[in-house]
Amino acid sequence: VTRFDDFQGRLRIAHNILKQRLNHLVEAGVIEKVRYSDHPPRSDYRLTEKGRDLWPVLTAMRQWGDRYAAPDGPPLQVAHEACGHISDAVLVCSVCGGRLAARDVRATHGPGAVEPLVGTAKP
Amino acid sequence: VTRFDDFQGRLRIAHNILKQRLNHLVEAGVIEKVRYSDHPPRSDYRLTEKGRDLWPVLTAMRQWGDRYAAPDGPPLQVAHEACGHISDAVLVCSVCGGRLAARDVRATHGPGAVEPLVGTAKP
Repeated sequence: VTRFDDFQGRLRIAHNILKQRLNHLVEAGVIEKVRYSDHPPRSDYRLTEKGRDLWPVLTAMRQWGDRYAAPDGPPLQVAHEACGHISDAVLVCSVCGGRLAARDVRATHGPGAVEPLVGTAKP
Repeated sequence: VTRFDDFQGRLRIAHNILKQRLNHLVEAGVIEKVRYSDHPPRSDYRLTEKGRDLWPVLTAMRQWGDRYAAPDGPPLQVAHEACGHISDAVLVCSVCGGRLAARDVRATHGPGAVEPLVGTAKP
């Protein structure tokens, strides 16, 4: 779905609200407006690379929701084309390939670190 | 950090706002209030399993932000204890272990699917 009318048909929200939301996403660089016909003038909305790169965020949110807020089971499942199976996404280390979870990592300051977030925490 | 005063020292927000936010997270089951002393009565806030399971969501959001909104580099990096390297989390298939991205998957209805989200999209 890339066209205004199709978004509206699916979402059933007011024209001005949808317009506002799409503009917001365009400003954020997540989608872009692409002219696909000059006569008559017509545009649609396509995901940018920045938008496509939100897939891991949405996937992680969806899986968390499926685990904690889907009493009837997941509304949507994802099949991995390469292996053909219904698949969950799991996080692994980009270096060694081992599983990554909160307990497996240590946070360190990166190059963009600003001053410590911490004031002086009381003991 | 688990104690009210320490959250406040770090976040520097008003007492009532912090209280409200912590209560909201307790109601959502993301943290829980745990009594750690009876005399004097003292409690702190601990992540629940539901809260810890938000780590993949936060990690995916952090990495997206590092890519698109961190001109000075990541403020925070994560070292994988097992291999010792600064590590990105990557998504792989829980079944075959292959990389997962938006283009590698097909969405299907799950057991909790409600009626199609779609009205009748115009052609």
